[in-house]
Amino acid sequence: MKTPIGKRLWVIPEGYLPPDAPGKSRAMQSHEAACVLNAGETDAHLRLTLYFADRPPAGPYLVTVPAQRTLHLRFNDLHDPAPVPPGADYSSVIQSDVPVVVQHTRLDSRGDRLALMTTLAYGAD
Amino acid sequence: MKTPIGKRLWVIPEGYLPPDAPGKSRAMQSHEAACVLNAGETDAHLRLTLYFADRPPAGPYLVTVPAQRTLHLRFNDLHDPAPVPPGADYSSVIQSDVPVVVQHTRLDSRGDRLALMTTLAYGAD
Amino acid sequence: MKTPIGKRLWVIPEGYLPPDAPGKSRAMQSHEAACVLNAGETDAHLRLTLYFADRPPAGPYLVTVPAQRTLHLRFNDLHDPAPVPPGADYSSVIQSDVPVVVQHTRLDSRGDRLALMTTLAYGAD
Amino acid sequence: MKTPIGKRLWVIPEGYLPPDAPGKSRAMQSHEAACVLNAGETDAHLRLTLYFADRPPAGPYLVTVPAQRTLHLRFNDLHDPAPVPPGADYSSVIQSDVPVVVQHTRLDSRGDRLALMTTLAYGAD
Repeated sequence: MKTPIGKRLWVIPEGYLPPDAPGKSRAMQSHEAACVLNAGETDAHLRLTLYFADRPPAGPYLVTVPAQRTLHLRFNDLHDPAPVPPGADYSSVIQSDVPVVVQHTRLDSRGDRLALMTTLAYGAD
Repeated sequence: MKTPIGKRLWVIPEGYLPPDAPGKSRAMQSHEAACVLNAGETDAHLRLTLYFADRPPAGPYLVTVPAQRTLHLRFNDLHDPAPVPPGADYSSVIQSDVPVVVQHTRLDSRGDRLALMTTLAYGAD
Repeated sequence: MKTPIGKRLWVIPEGYLPPDAPGKSRAMQSHEAACVLNAGETDAHLRLTLYFADRPPAGPYLVTVPAQRTLHLRFNDLHDPAPVPPGADYSSVIQSDVPVVVQHTRLDSRGDRLALMTTLAYGAD
Repeated sequence: MKTPIGKRLWVIPEGYLPPDAPGKSRAMQSHEAACVLNAGETDAHLRLTLYFADRPPAGPYLVTVPAQRTLHLRFNDLHDPAPVPPGADYSSVIQSDVPVVVQHTRLDSRGDRLALMTTLAYGAD
């Protein structure tokens, strides 16, 4: 597996952090994640840009995924340059300096219920 | 990110609006959405056509996604030329004059339950 | 939209009919579907083959999707040459004589719960 | 269907085994699966490698999918060289000596709830 796997540009059109009650465990709290695999030999430096319905894009958010590691990046955890507002529609574009593969997942546990959804992101070159 | 990202033709074969009880909040009401990211510098003009199991296609539905914005378009909100009937199987084809990326999501909250599903749409050129 | 949209060969690796209690409405009964859009001007004739974990493939199952129509085909409804056994792992391959687009969806309502999942099928040419 | 269908390299960036209570039936126990269809005439020999957030990759896990069969491989069932730890983020890369098609599914039944998610894996050549 010498050739790096994946693409350098990924898009997740769907984005929404369900407004959730506080006090839940991290595992069960409503969240949205971009799961990024960097199977290559070089660290991946990601630049995330968030797009909204009614205001200019935000970013870049800078994230590193070490070589041969995975990062399940929660959008809830992004704070710099600004946190992602719960309850707002957004989209994300992820640019990487080396090939990676990205999958989008949401866990929604509002009202003690449980729903999951996932899809590969849209990869471009 | 100078090159527009995405494709001009997208297909969502699955479509179904769960017949839901009235009175829920907009966030928790059963719905189906086409999440469209227009990351480019030009407004995107979309033409939606809906296909059914037992009657001719309906449309076009005309929708604009401004430059550098996202639109989480709910099929429940389409009214012109005709609303989408709840409880009926349908598919949708989305044509855009500039490249966009489309993801399909359904939230089903019938009977106070909660289920989610999502997938990238099928992009063609 | 003169060119037919889609591909002629589709694969759904995941297949499983949740064994469900009888007496539910058709809408709420656990089921698995291949949602097929035929946006073209010619009827699509499909041949489905089912693959199992522990026995030879079954089929072909013959299904027609009329021109400019969608078919949300429930695997639960397949009977000829043989019904799909609930509770067994399977995969499906769908061949069409004209281009179509296929999305896979499962609704699981065991024990009065509700879960959904969906993905585009794998399209080949 | 003489040409083998699929690709030889597949990536699933998302991976997480929900820590679940013991004593559930196999069907209802939280699990994560890679559903692999080998529609070809030759057995497929798979090599799985797991990537983690904070330690080196694990593997290879060796699995065979017989010709013209499907395998819904549960990550919970992998034991050699080491079991997959519940509650940890991981990703998987699947290499096959013949073309196959791979779909990722998770069933999460924590607390007697039920959530499902699925997506095609990312196929490369």
